[in-house]
Amino acid sequence: MSEYIEHDKNGVSVGQVEKRHFTFSYPPDHLVLESNARLGPVTIAYETMGQLNADKSNVILILHALSGDSHVAGYYDEKDPKPGWWEIMVGPGKGIDTDKYFVICSNIIGSCMGSTGPSSVCPATGKPYGFEFPVVTVADMVKAQKALIDHLGITKILAVVGGSIGGMQVLEWTVRYPDTVVSAIPLATTTRHSALAIAFNEVARQAIMADPNWNNGNYYDGPRPNLGLALARMVGHVTYLSDEAMRRKFGRRLQDKDDFSFNFDADFQVESYLRY
Amino acid sequence: MSEYIEHDKNGVSVGQVEKRHFTFSYPPDHLVLESNARLGPVTIAYETMGQLNADKSNVILILHALSGDSHVAGYYDEKDPKPGWWEIMVGPGKGIDTDKYFVICSNIIGSCMGSTGPSSVCPATGKPYGFEFPVVTVADMVKAQKALIDHLGITKILAVVGGSIGGMQVLEWTVRYPDTVVSAIPLATTTRHSALAIAFNEVARQAIMADPNWNNGNYYDGPRPNLGLALARMVGHVTYLSDEAMRRKFGRRLQDKDDFSFNFDADFQVESYLRY
Repeated sequence: MSEYIEHDKNGVSVGQVEKRHFTFSYPPDHLVLESNARLGPVTIAYETMGQLNADKSNVILILHALSGDSHVAGYYDEKDPKPGWWEIMVGPGKGIDTDKYFVICSNIIGSCMGSTGPSSVCPATGKPYGFEFPVVTVADMVKAQKALIDHLGITKILAVVGGSIGGMQVLEWTVRYPDTVVSAIPLATTTRHSALAIAFNEVARQAIMADPNWNNGNYYDGPRPNLGLALARMVGHVTYLSDEAMRRKFGRRLQDKDDFSFNFDADFQVESYLRY
Repeated sequence: MSEYIEHDKNGVSVGQVEKRHFTFSYPPDHLVLESNARLGPVTIAYETMGQLNADKSNVILILHALSGDSHVAGYYDEKDPKPGWWEIMVGPGKGIDTDKYFVICSNIIGSCMGSTGPSSVCPATGKPYGFEFPVVTVADMVKAQKALIDHLGITKILAVVGGSIGGMQVLEWTVRYPDTVVSAIPLATTTRHSALAIAFNEVARQAIMADPNWNNGNYYDGPRPNLGLALARMVGHVTYLSDEAMRRKFGRRLQDKDDFSFNFDADFQVESYLRY
């Protein structure tokens, strides 16, 4: 672990971690989704940190937000310039203390970060699923996570932790598997989207689908709909801060200038933030 | 007027109106904008309703919102299927009573609805201004409106009325020409945008500029960036209703179905609203 300590601004790092994959074919050869579509085989990417204790009572399951992945903390190798997305919280002596707990972070199905998703090869066609990938729900994500937990021989989870859509998974865990979950830490989340949240998501989806490279979801052989994705991400970022938080963080301050440019440059700091 | 009454659901209509144009070259041959750019000649599209009284004391100036135009009420001809955008408010016996007041609605400069804007031909090049059109501010819009009011021989305005960016123009009128404005009715507006409003506008602008038909603003000879404009309009619509108003209006109600489709159809009413 020591080689990572010096370049870690977030305190002592958990050090080297490894992305693992678990593939299951489940009953008898697929996961039955909420839509009644069948998906299989299903692969889940996950990472673990810390040591599982003898009675398996120190498990913390971390569930990531929409654009996250299994790489919650640590480094893949010594040259890796960037730690996992929650390095500040997960590690030796940190809030989620890897000296005490066995931490699992599981990538959601439908992701493009190692788990079965639209970019995976469909067994029936030998090509990426693309638009043919079934719509998955929060419950589907949690059912796949439960298969991983079963596979690891774990029957009790001390805490299920996650924010945003990760928090929705936390809530789903408590309802679907109440005997497995000892405690739950849902962060910045909800049991269901409001009309406003549905509206924001619709705009983001339409931004991606308006990109000519979207190609009806079958873009794995060609250019990606990167402009549409960037716009969708901008829409997301507008919603991550409240009106008041945005006022405090940016106000009407200008970016590296003393006056308005009267052109299409990013005059305001908040514009610069969104473009970045 | 009588031929319009029957097909008007908003009460008695002011009837036939005509779009007029006023072109000025101003001191000596251009409008000096806040950016110090010079624009000229400048044309303003406008419509009037009602009669100016003898002492010119019954003038109401209506200023439209971003996507509006000078056609505030009435019909252009008998076959015109749709009245102006504020038909419910402007007409004989209505809130802004054209039997009592001389109503002027002036299209803003920078618009594509008859006033000088990016789609107008630039005298220097003989081509549409496109991206070369100078950035105009609320103050620039108001200065152009003042030139129209002067041209009409009017020195007092009983009420300046407008919503959204029209309301910003109302406020600008009161500050810039306090001796001309007798009363002001600014609606749903602000003296300056918050960080959140700046952010929403940036997303809308980027949506238009990400459309491949944007072509750096020079699209007058080819296809228009309609998908980008539709996205920008969606972003706008999300901001026109508060969280609470959207909850009341749409909630999580589904559109013409009893259950989720698990595909990319518009399941929710609010999605359908945005797509429309």
